[in-house]
Amino acid sequence: MEDTYERVTELARRRGFVWPSSEIYGSVAGFIDYGPLGAMMKRRIENVWRNFYVVQEGYYEIECPTVGIEPIYVASGHVGGFSDKMFQCPHCQEFLRADHVAEAFGIPHAGTMSKEELHEVLMDKECPACGKVLGSVDVFDFNLMFTTSIGPGGQRKGYLRPETAQGMFVDFPRLLRFYRDHLPFGAVQIGKSYRNEISPRQGMIRLREFTQAEAEIFVHPEEKDHPFFARYANYAMPLCGIAQQEADAPAVVKTMREAVDEGIIANEYVAYYVAMTHDILCTVGFNPDKIRFRQHMPDERAHYATDCWDAEAFSDRFGWVEIVGIADRTNYDLKAHSRVSGEKMTVFVQYPEAKKVHHKAVVPNFGKMGPVYRGKAKAISELMKTTTAEPQADGLHLTVDGEEIVVPPEMYTVKDEMVDVFGEDVMPHVIEPSYGIDRMSYMVLEHAYAEDEADGETRTVMRFKSCVAPVQAAVLPLMARDGLDGIARKLVAELQDEGIQTEYDDAGAIGRRYRRQDEIGTPVCITIDYDTKEDATATLRDRDSMQQVRLPLAEIPAVVYQLIKGKKTFAQLG
Amino acid sequence: MEDTYERVTELARRRGFVWPSSEIYGSVAGFIDYGPLGAMMKRRIENVWRNFYVVQEGYYEIECPTVGIEPIYVASGHVGGFSDKMFQCPHCQEFLRADHVAEAFGIPHAGTMSKEELHEVLMDKECPACGKVLGSVDVFDFNLMFTTSIGPGGQRKGYLRPETAQGMFVDFPRLLRFYRDHLPFGAVQIGKSYRNEISPRQGMIRLREFTQAEAEIFVHPEEKDHPFFARYANYAMPLCGIAQQEADAPAVVKTMREAVDEGIIANEYVAYYVAMTHDILCTVGFNPDKIRFRQHMPDERAHYATDCWDAEAFSDRFGWVEIVGIADRTNYDLKAHSRVSGEKMTVFVQYPEAKKVHHKAVVPNFGKMGPVYRGKAKAISELMKTTTAEPQADGLHLTVDGEEIVVPPEMYTVKDEMVDVFGEDVMPHVIEPSYGIDRMSYMVLEHAYAEDEADGETRTVMRFKSCVAPVQAAVLPLMARDGLDGIARKLVAELQDEGIQTEYDDAGAIGRRYRRQDEIGTPVCITIDYDTKEDATATLRDRDSMQQVRLPLAEIPAVVYQLIKGKKTFAQLG
Repeated sequence: MEDTYERVTELARRRGFVWPSSEIYGSVAGFIDYGPLGAMMKRRIENVWRNFYVVQEGYYEIECPTVGIEPIYVASGHVGGFSDKMFQCPHCQEFLRADHVAEAFGIPHAGTMSKEELHEVLMDKECPACGKVLGSVDVFDFNLMFTTSIGPGGQRKGYLRPETAQGMFVDFPRLLRFYRDHLPFGAVQIGKSYRNEISPRQGMIRLREFTQAEAEIFVHPEEKDHPFFARYANYAMPLCGIAQQEADAPAVVKTMREAVDEGIIANEYVAYYVAMTHDILCTVGFNPDKIRFRQHMPDERAHYATDCWDAEAFSDRFGWVEIVGIADRTNYDLKAHSRVSGEKMTVFVQYPEAKKVHHKAVVPNFGKMGPVYRGKAKAISELMKTTTAEPQADGLHLTVDGEEIVVPPEMYTVKDEMVDVFGEDVMPHVIEPSYGIDRMSYMVLEHAYAEDEADGETRTVMRFKSCVAPVQAAVLPLMARDGLDGIARKLVAELQDEGIQTEYDDAGAIGRRYRRQDEIGTPVCITIDYDTKEDATATLRDRDSMQQVRLPLAEIPAVVYQLIKGKKTFAQLG
Repeated sequence: MEDTYERVTELARRRGFVWPSSEIYGSVAGFIDYGPLGAMMKRRIENVWRNFYVVQEGYYEIECPTVGIEPIYVASGHVGGFSDKMFQCPHCQEFLRADHVAEAFGIPHAGTMSKEELHEVLMDKECPACGKVLGSVDVFDFNLMFTTSIGPGGQRKGYLRPETAQGMFVDFPRLLRFYRDHLPFGAVQIGKSYRNEISPRQGMIRLREFTQAEAEIFVHPEEKDHPFFARYANYAMPLCGIAQQEADAPAVVKTMREAVDEGIIANEYVAYYVAMTHDILCTVGFNPDKIRFRQHMPDERAHYATDCWDAEAFSDRFGWVEIVGIADRTNYDLKAHSRVSGEKMTVFVQYPEAKKVHHKAVVPNFGKMGPVYRGKAKAISELMKTTTAEPQADGLHLTVDGEEIVVPPEMYTVKDEMVDVFGEDVMPHVIEPSYGIDRMSYMVLEHAYAEDEADGETRTVMRFKSCVAPVQAAVLPLMARDGLDGIARKLVAELQDEGIQTEYDDAGAIGRRYRRQDEIGTPVCITIDYDTKEDATATLRDRDSMQQVRLPLAEIPAVVYQLIKGKKTFAQLG
């Protein structure tokens, strides 16, 4: 018996949503093609996302290359640590992920085991590919970044980015200037990322080339209250916090205000994007009963993150699948890039009013310095006045032209004075919501998939929200003649003028045409029949209820626009 | 003295349009980052393009991976022939493009020279990098595709696609079914492509990672009249055809109807997209006086193309730069993929009415075959009835289970009969308009760049068309207090509700704020002042004319919407 995954995948192929990539050459695991309807749907999902992050939040989108140079990924830690534990079966030569194989044999915590531990537990297991006992296999790290080389003669190593996030971190100094040196600010990116998965076998859920939508929000480390928290303060949803997971207890329903006040979620920023993520997933058509938010356990969380939540969605075949991660990454990334690049990566934050602080001012005795330092005396005395180094017992330690010198105490006097300090350099913390667009696209397909009955037959219908439906309206002349086709084409043009993606279809019986539009999830069909020629009215048919209503032709573009934008429901037309 | 390129580039960096990529790590040639305003502008250019190709033409967009497997690029010819001729300077070890160096020394036709010819002409030239005489350098082919490997253990070779086009060719069988087996149809793709250029030195004009927008339109080889040619039949523009170039004559101004009838452009399909390309370039803001269409000379055209036109735009620094190529690629690509993959890549095209043709029908004599072919006799006799092979003197040649057999004449009789043939398999020809989105983005910046005078000072202003301006409106409260800020924020929200990208800015003198919006090309500024509190009106300021007009606050969102959509001009408001 087919499961939902198979039915959805079959429909997706047949109707032009998702195709195996380079199918005529046998295709290759981990890559897919979005067909005409799938690409349209995916773009609409991205645009819903933009509407939240770019329009509502005001975080501008940037676009960085997918090919990056080595220092970026040295700093980010991907060169050193972005790997899966792998082994090769000594019998059939298949490469396999060690933790996945161990997990499949019911070994607990396989995902956090060391290479040695995995080696031990795999010893007496059978290879899932050939069935022979593995014996002593060598478990090793396999870096998941695709590599390439830039320029001729292998001049420079390049990596296909494993996430879009690093682009925003690397551009931090430019972004800071763009946002006129004020915190908080954010930047987002929607684009391709790449992970050279060992043996991906889960369709759109585990791809080697995939699309991410990531936001990096730079905030003051001590100011993690979101300025517009009120928007989601009373937004309630079930949360599987650390405590619930430890106690094996069900999720608790909390408002975001409660979740922050009770310490379930670390701060308002994380809570705000947890709620907004729920909002986005529901908006694009996830079934709210199949969404949950699960907090990372301390041992599963990246060591630098102070809090991390996954939005998971339920899939018939794969169970709970991670769709979005929302993390407080602290200053980990900026610090790492600052260290490797030598750039400052800080914001000068003014105090509300200047602070008076004690300062030991050094006054050089130029008369004594001249004979000793000669031509350099002037430069050294200037440096003595501006250095932040405090005088030591043996003198003042300075670095002049790369050389360290110690100016002895007799060459200067020290004056203790009060000075005004107007602010300080602060390295921001980063809040990162990170979305897997392909997984979202798959879940939108699966959660929209439905079968019901129409005219005594089973009907397959994709119950897409109209904001993501690839085709938003279809115009169907009863016959492709007698002027009905002309009226229909004119209406198509008018609907497209309203920005509504409209299909014209005059082929075959009307019932079959409805079925086809149902299968691709078109929310509204408009039928032009012989009465249309008499009274200039046409029939609107609602995809979900299959109800029909007769309306004047002239009103139809505006009405369909309102239906698609969610400003009116079909029931209100009757 | 700075040229326009330097001024545009400086402004683009400072204002967040385009940044050097991974700048904190010293950046790398051939890669750029689009900053907040640049990414917004680029996305708008892409959306204008979509509006022509996807909405108007009805060609659906698809999305294929950027990483492709080897057979695709063996078939396309990129593995064999996508290379530049290169040499390495024996003195400074710099890698250089042989044709570019020869060209810089005034050698004519360097671009079409062989390796041996280039070797000869470079002998006595100085290295442009170190200045020493090159001597006998080895000129060799350098393949411009980035390579990578897919899966662990270098399992499978992968290439970063050098063009998006191949995705549409490879998906041809799926696309054909999606379009219900009817010609003509088209598919488009907007996405990243990659060329490992040897030493790119022209900013956004020559990138190693770039964005293409390509359409592949599949047409019947004998039906190259565009069904909606009327749309552009009277569209006139200057054309530099082969004849004009050979005679060193100026471009001739022709309508598309004339160009096709006079044989300047090969067919209606090519002419239609030549005109549409002109339309698109003007729509996004190219200066019409700086656009020309140049036909490829026979020796410069790919051998399989029957006609090819480049849309070129004039840049102060680079001269005429190719922006778009429009080619009739015949059936070259489908034939190549069919050969390598074994797929059919044809369309069954019905004749208007069935044709009667002679057919030699083979009637097996089963009685005689049984004893000879035994268990296989049935399968062979079935094959004899359906084969298209004609009987030869020695018998009927068949391939059964991979084995070739000859059925002797005594085992069958041949009947000459008339049969109905309803149609034939046709391999479509492909019309391909291919756009470089980064070059378009650069030209939009350069052609929009202007300096004029305002308040007795030089003003820099980006005269963007409002359909590509990244920020479409700015709301400026005179002061950030006394309730002016509140009124301004409310107006921002209302404008955003209309889908207008709006900035709020309350920092600094109003004149400086206008200058900033002029520099980023915001078409309209709205100033909220103390009168606004009294009479609920505000000032609209036009970027280009700097004229101002006072309007009721309540009318502003609708008016700005009409201005941005081009449904009203500022002059009409007065």
